[in-house]
Amino acid sequence: NVAIEKAMLIDELEDLEFDQWARLLEALPIEERLSQWQLISDDVQAEVLVEMRAEARLSIIDTLATDNLEQIFSLLSPEDLIELADSLPDHLIDLALQQMDQKQRLFFEHSNQFNENQIGRYADHNLLVLPQNAKVYDALRLLRRAIPECTDTLFLTDRAGRYAGTVPLQSTFGSPGHISLVELLDEQAEPLLAEMSLEESAEVLEKSEYVLLPIIDVKGMLIGRMTIKDGFQIMRESHEAENMARAGLSESEDLFSPILKSSMRRATWLGINLLTAFLASWAIGLFEATLQQVVALAVLMPIVASMGGIAGSQTLTLIIRGIALGQISRGNLMPLLIKELSVGCFNGFLWALAIGGVVAYWFSDFMIGLVIASAIAINIMAAAFSGVIIPVLLEKLKIDPALSGSVILTTVTDVVGFVTFLGLGTLFLI
Amino acid sequence: NVAIEKAMLIDELEDLEFDQWARLLEALPIEERLSQWQLISDDVQAEVLVEMRAEARLSIIDTLATDNLEQIFSLLSPEDLIELADSLPDHLIDLALQQMDQKQRLFFEHSNQFNENQIGRYADHNLLVLPQNAKVYDALRLLRRAIPECTDTLFLTDRAGRYAGTVPLQSTFGSPGHISLVELLDEQAEPLLAEMSLEESAEVLEKSEYVLLPIIDVKGMLIGRMTIKDGFQIMRESHEAENMARAGLSESEDLFSPILKSSMRRATWLGINLLTAFLASWAIGLFEATLQQVVALAVLMPIVASMGGIAGSQTLTLIIRGIALGQISRGNLMPLLIKELSVGCFNGFLWALAIGGVVAYWFSDFMIGLVIASAIAINIMAAAFSGVIIPVLLEKLKIDPALSGSVILTTVTDVVGFVTFLGLGTLFLI
Repeated sequence: NVAIEKAMLIDELEDLEFDQWARLLEALPIEERLSQWQLISDDVQAEVLVEMRAEARLSIIDTLATDNLEQIFSLLSPEDLIELADSLPDHLIDLALQQMDQKQRLFFEHSNQFNENQIGRYADHNLLVLPQNAKVYDALRLLRRAIPECTDTLFLTDRAGRYAGTVPLQSTFGSPGHISLVELLDEQAEPLLAEMSLEESAEVLEKSEYVLLPIIDVKGMLIGRMTIKDGFQIMRESHEAENMARAGLSESEDLFSPILKSSMRRATWLGINLLTAFLASWAIGLFEATLQQVVALAVLMPIVASMGGIAGSQTLTLIIRGIALGQISRGNLMPLLIKELSVGCFNGFLWALAIGGVVAYWFSDFMIGLVIASAIAINIMAAAFSGVIIPVLLEKLKIDPALSGSVILTTVTDVVGFVTFLGLGTLFLI
Repeated sequence: NVAIEKAMLIDELEDLEFDQWARLLEALPIEERLSQWQLISDDVQAEVLVEMRAEARLSIIDTLATDNLEQIFSLLSPEDLIELADSLPDHLIDLALQQMDQKQRLFFEHSNQFNENQIGRYADHNLLVLPQNAKVYDALRLLRRAIPECTDTLFLTDRAGRYAGTVPLQSTFGSPGHISLVELLDEQAEPLLAEMSLEESAEVLEKSEYVLLPIIDVKGMLIGRMTIKDGFQIMRESHEAENMARAGLSESEDLFSPILKSSMRRATWLGINLLTAFLASWAIGLFEATLQQVVALAVLMPIVASMGGIAGSQTLTLIIRGIALGQISRGNLMPLLIKELSVGCFNGFLWALAIGGVVAYWFSDFMIGLVIASAIAINIMAAAFSGVIIPVLLEKLKIDPALSGSVILTTVTDVVGFVTFLGLGTLFLI
């Protein structure tokens, strides 16, 4: 709330950082957003736009006149333009490119050949680079000028610009000036490949002993660097995207996106889930005759389905983490299944006993207690089985289990729950 | 799978890094885990234990003899012991402390006064520190010796050890040797307070222009540093903990934890959810007489509840992200509520029409189509309202909406869905 409360005190507005401005604008309804936008001084507007999430950003850009856009875009670096490019219409990208010089345009074109999940796209061009025949005093001279933020190594290239190695800055401090830098190379240091995914690059960088790594293309050309701060931001965004995707939302979703647009997008997710709900209804429909005679079954149905869903989600969550960490393989699948089924067995019987008892007492009917107890036990065990098998299968099919696992699992536990409970009811209560 | 597949090829085992060993051991059933453990050479066992998640780690420690433990603990740094301390029994911590020298014990005691969510606990003692009257040539001499990983600043302290400022390494390179370091201080640089939460520290560090920040205690003493790599790890662990907590699991949950232990822990979460399921059943029970006469209502109930649950989760997810970013305040709550209710209105009517149509056709009964259509529309709008209000209320009550929001929301949408649908059914179908 800090950003918003600050906004109330107009005098403090000037103290806001780019990202605080961005969060504030995102938090405002469209009209207020546009009037606050006017209060941002011209020279930081470009940076604030870069910090904003795509949809909220477009809600502002769409209202700006061409000369205003030209002015903003004239302040954009190629790196900033790449960040915006995913969400800008083509004619605006062309407009921004016109404001750049030849070198900047080349940077942009180069980055733009990689897609949105490749680290090459986001290569940062603030590098310490020296030719491979440079010596320690060249390095020290370079260091005396400005060093880019987040830098603990410099890179060597050959004449063609191909990456030739990484020199830790630290090793240059203690060495005599006439030593060749190639003698100080860290042979262990491995560059990132431009085609690597963002997440993978972040992981490689985290495990390296440096705070930045060079990025090279297929020809071995040094095209830029990735810093650990970039990695931090990638992790944060990918986690946010995952949370949003679980509810069928996009990461760029605006708090105040236009109602029609927002509704249409959400409708798709509701539609998918409706199909699974109809499946459950169809399963119940098979037992209409039974329900007519034993209405208590209708009252108790949701308990059976819900217990299965919860138990299944627990197993699913554990397995999804294991898959993400690369810990699930054919070698341990069977012991895992046995362990989860044992846990399912334990909790199945525990809750079968508890719920069966309560229900038998509630309806003064021993048999209905027995029926729900059996259904609970079976459904919790089926849930444990599905919780292991579904994510492993999805992974094999190259579908992200963290996104679709839960929908599929609860469909299974709903259907199994309803069919077992109503099926047993049909056999023993009529 | 890489780690596990590697483990199959025994020759490659020696190439595994600490964390790959840790992931591999975690992925194995207890017996195999213990036999693989034997293959790890003595000098890295301590590091591998530190990398493991608490429960899997304990499963190994519990089997080790005292002399073996003493040997492992003699290799632990105070920082490592702090990582382990959360999950080690007291007598083992004492054992480890006995292996340390006076200075290391002091480090440990100092860190141990902070709790598990305070950054002071994890302060790293690899610092470049100079007295505040030092000059540039002192700094350069220090740099020629070893520089700790992830370092772009050095810190000044007064005679008592109180933090006196941050000097960017970069500014020492270009300055004459006789200049005092105090003249190169970055006045903007702010230290972390030892009591700060891990997440907050990570955020402050990410936004700073450095890759490490000093940590000071209440008396202003410089007690250590936090690096951006620590921040990265904190973020990763907090994401994992959040994902696990959503299913009522702890972050330390072991893939192969003992069945009884694992079952008991999961039983608690199942119990909580059972209460909400009984609430839904009770709501349905109010309409037993209706259900007896119109059994189609029992068949269709889950559709109404499920559509409400999904629509509500979408709003909930959006609002929880907003709260996490500090974007929800009294100032925009009303416009947000109006926007979400409008989206709910749109999707409510859209799906009311679609579902009403299908149901009227399925049961050849116009009235039941009308009843479910009305119930869907009402429940989706109630879901939009709850999706905004529940997380905001929870936040006010200092309960994390990301953890309990979803359980509460689906309870509301279930009960509202069942009551509306069966209530309307009672009014119009009998």
